[in-house]
Amino acid sequence: MATAAAAAAAAETVLYSYWRSSCSYRVRIVLNLKGIPYKYHAVHLLKDGGQQLTEEYAALNPMREVPTLLIDGATLTQSMAICEYLEETRPSPALLPVDAPVRRAAVRSLCAAIACDIQPVGNLRILKHVAQIAEGSKEEKEAKKLEWAKLYIAKGFEGVEALLRQWAGSCCVGDEPTLADAFLVPQVYNAIRFNVDMTAYPTISRVHAHVSELPAFKAAHPSAQPDAEA
Amino acid sequence: MATAAAAAAAAETVLYSYWRSSCSYRVRIVLNLKGIPYKYHAVHLLKDGGQQLTEEYAALNPMREVPTLLIDGATLTQSMAICEYLEETRPSPALLPVDAPVRRAAVRSLCAAIACDIQPVGNLRILKHVAQIAEGSKEEKEAKKLEWAKLYIAKGFEGVEALLRQWAGSCCVGDEPTLADAFLVPQVYNAIRFNVDMTAYPTISRVHAHVSELPAFKAAHPSAQPDAEA
Repeated sequence: MATAAAAAAAAETVLYSYWRSSCSYRVRIVLNLKGIPYKYHAVHLLKDGGQQLTEEYAALNPMREVPTLLIDGATLTQSMAICEYLEETRPSPALLPVDAPVRRAAVRSLCAAIACDIQPVGNLRILKHVAQIAEGSKEEKEAKKLEWAKLYIAKGFEGVEALLRQWAGSCCVGDEPTLADAFLVPQVYNAIRFNVDMTAYPTISRVHAHVSELPAFKAAHPSAQPDAEA
Repeated sequence: MATAAAAAAAAETVLYSYWRSSCSYRVRIVLNLKGIPYKYHAVHLLKDGGQQLTEEYAALNPMREVPTLLIDGATLTQSMAICEYLEETRPSPALLPVDAPVRRAAVRSLCAAIACDIQPVGNLRILKHVAQIAEGSKEEKEAKKLEWAKLYIAKGFEGVEALLRQWAGSCCVGDEPTLADAFLVPQVYNAIRFNVDMTAYPTISRVHAHVSELPAFKAAHPSAQPDAEA
């Protein structure tokens, strides 16, 4: 009985996610693309001073971030590492071009451009800190925070736009969705939240318009999550 | 003749690197571990307003960063994507645990903790911007910049320390060097530059003491590069 319960628990796939977290959003897209059913466990990044910061959550995810994925009896963290794991253990549909190392590198380079150069420097903790140290009145601090957020998305998207000019078909790299699309769509969602002028990035906009309409992407949208707020 | 020259150029491996760039340092370690000879092309991140920001360099690397690797006739960017490419095309010695998806995920999670959560928020462009917007005199701005740099390394290393307590042997994951070690050692180099108190991270320190003495790591050290400054 205990063994059966343990086996069931081990078999259960659980995603610790926050509706508006772009890193969670990436993994939701990939789980959907691969048709992996999962239980949604909401972690509110603002409530209770940040539920991700508790010791209980840190035992699962020592970096105190979302997402965390429980799967195959293992606890996985970091969106890129989770996506690579899913690709290795559930290779179909392939989200990295098969037998094409240079194209695989292009996909991963796009993922890293978003996951290393853009998202981390404009996330919640950094923007709070920017407002805190910035010179000026409360309104001026708020303005500097928004300016910071827009600046790094815009700078990053300039590079991503150039990479997509080189690699994109109807998707980021060729005509089938890859991990790069799962990383791009959430970043565009953030860009729109921060009023970045997307007309400056026609290739990003074109790819986004196509892939964001695919069912796996639509079901992963923040507004479709159980913890979505008005 | 033109074909022979083109073939030679295609065969030449060139690393665009800056001696003190931790992202370049990661790739130098991996090239050394895999025994891949390469030509070193220095890109000075400060001189001429930043040589990585030129249009000429952006044609190679649209994100305008180091490193860039020319190999097998391809132009690769982003340290993680480059390392995955080298692992796929030169699998020996393996720098990701073979046939062990959960352990591979642990290695990649450690790489991402460093490459996404720590390095990007404390790099040159961000620290310059922090000093620019911070309230106070020139000295106060400088102090806030250093405080910022230390804070995010310290916060990140708390999580990395917990992950290593779970996974480390003499190296980050087990007893053989993996990509995680190639990412950790350059980040410790940065931490020491910024006077982070490393005694708070005994597992990181123990692993660092071991792997940083391996020949591939020593040869990749910033001070051993052709563009090293006093």
